Amino acid sequence: MLESRAEMETAINVEFGRKLLAQQPFSVLLGAQLTVFEPGSAELVIPLRAEHLQQHGFVHGGVLSYAADNALTFAGGSALGPQVVTSEYKINYLRPANGECLVARAVVVYAGKTQAVCRCDIFAVKEGQEILCATAQGTIARLGNQG
Amino acid sequence: MLESRAEMETAINVEFGRKLLAQQPFSVLLGAQLTVFEPGSAELVIPLRAEHLQQHGFVHGGVLSYAADNALTFAGGSALGPQVVTSEYKINYLRPANGECLVARAVVVYAGKTQAVCRCDIFAVKEGQEILCATAQGTIARLGNQG
Amino acid sequence: MLESRAEMETAINVEFGRKLLAQQPFSVLLGAQLTVFEPGSAELVIPLRAEHLQQHGFVHGGVLSYAADNALTFAGGSALGPQVVTSEYKINYLRPANGECLVARAVVVYAGKTQAVCRCDIFAVKEGQEILCATAQGTIARLGNQG
Amino acid sequence: MLESRAEMETAINVEFGRKLLAQQPFSVLLGAQLTVFEPGSAELVIPLRAEHLQQHGFVHGGVLSYAADNALTFAGGSALGPQVVTSEYKINYLRPANGECLVARAVVVYAGKTQAVCRCDIFAVKEGQEILCATAQGTIARLGNQG
Repeated sequence: MLESRAEMETAINVEFGRKLLAQQPFSVLLGAQLTVFEPGSAELVIPLRAEHLQQHGFVHGGVLSYAADNALTFAGGSALGPQVVTSEYKINYLRPANGECLVARAVVVYAGKTQAVCRCDIFAVKEGQEILCATAQGTIARLGNQG
Repeated sequence: MLESRAEMETAINVEFGRKLLAQQPFSVLLGAQLTVFEPGSAELVIPLRAEHLQQHGFVHGGVLSYAADNALTFAGGSALGPQVVTSEYKINYLRPANGECLVARAVVVYAGKTQAVCRCDIFAVKEGQEILCATAQGTIARLGNQG
Repeated sequence: MLESRAEMETAINVEFGRKLLAQQPFSVLLGAQLTVFEPGSAELVIPLRAEHLQQHGFVHGGVLSYAADNALTFAGGSALGPQVVTSEYKINYLRPANGECLVARAVVVYAGKTQAVCRCDIFAVKEGQEILCATAQGTIARLGNQG
Repeated sequence: MLESRAEMETAINVEFGRKLLAQQPFSVLLGAQLTVFEPGSAELVIPLRAEHLQQHGFVHGGVLSYAADNALTFAGGSALGPQVVTSEYKINYLRPANGECLVARAVVVYAGKTQAVCRCDIFAVKEGQEILCATAQGTIARLGNQG
């Protein structure tokens, strides 16, 4: 856990965030990339491959959920420090997703000392156009404060 | 969409469900297995591998979410017919998960004509013991009735 | 259910919405007022009274939930026509609420033919200042399409 | 906050719970009664009156939400001690509710030191028969640990 503002400022930047993401084998398996990690927001991009799909040729809900969960965690971590976990979230799937990549953009709605509430919109990028495919809301907790 | 009770009975069994699951490239990537698919319930098992983990050595939330989402969908499909999608769900993570495998058990709480509401408990199996790690609740819709 | 664009335009205005709200005995009991009802958004105001509180002198969660639920329904109705119900929603309580009144602002995030997904922020107004106290996300369905 | 097991045992019983409920003006306004409050579960009953309804003659979603929220809080309090608040929850409405009364039954799914995750089923009792009308899941936090 980060103890000082200085440590916090060192940690909340995209290079640091990318190191964290690279330590998550599941994120590496899915090919997720961190494109924004700054105070109050985070953005993940997942270039789409055949193995992200379900039986109808659209992105599997599990991939959209992964993107929401992880973008929410990074957004929460941008407010609470990087040692955080997602406590809970809810997601609404809005449209079938396909295209070149997914973009998950999460923002902090409220940050307390040990928890933050964040929202995330997940877009499919198809022929360069962003289409909103899912939206999520959840709670992120500092490690050691999640139960 | 299934048009008759006879078609329904043909479809709601574990062999049919396994064929469906095998058509989802993302489920194949994660190694998910369908162990129960009968009227009112479904169970998925995911034998755990290093690539399911996050940076602290526990199962990534995205894997728990995938398991919840897909088990909810199968449970809903057991009531509505197999042509269904998850509309929305919420998940609470309860304990860090690790061990030999995940088991996601979903049941139908309510089934209407076009939608079902289901719940799912996700357990980590460690040295043969089941530990509840996450719990979820969501809405499953028949395809063509989800928006 | 509204059958034409003309009927829709007649219905989606604050005077029509107020008549609807006045037909809800529970909304009358709570003293809710509709202040915005236009395509894509709705706003409810609840002047606070002692009977809205819990044992610590803050607004009871049930009042915040009522405000979220009803503002979400009106927002959904602004997109789908006024014959709608809330199917499901989730709410995060962010801060204890007190002051002169609550303001619940809901917007449509996605609207299909039979369902809409909306978000709602609930503010307490204290000495003229708005403080975000809760945030919600949910699904609104046209009557006859909710199950 | 309860500091000892002895204090906990004194507090988690239906008489103590009824005193708490009687201190919530909003619960008094709605006529809620606590019928069960024991380790791991709580039950609220709301005898239905005209002022609980919406424009179609069914119980307003806000009343179902109040019942869910408050039963979840009591269930959480049965595990964490009575000084608790609901952090967040989600609710699915399943059927229109009417009849003589509502019964909200909540149980603890998981309890940590500072938070508990609970579920709640809400039934309408009509001509003596219980009909499941809504189901909810949420997080309850000890006061001072909710943010």
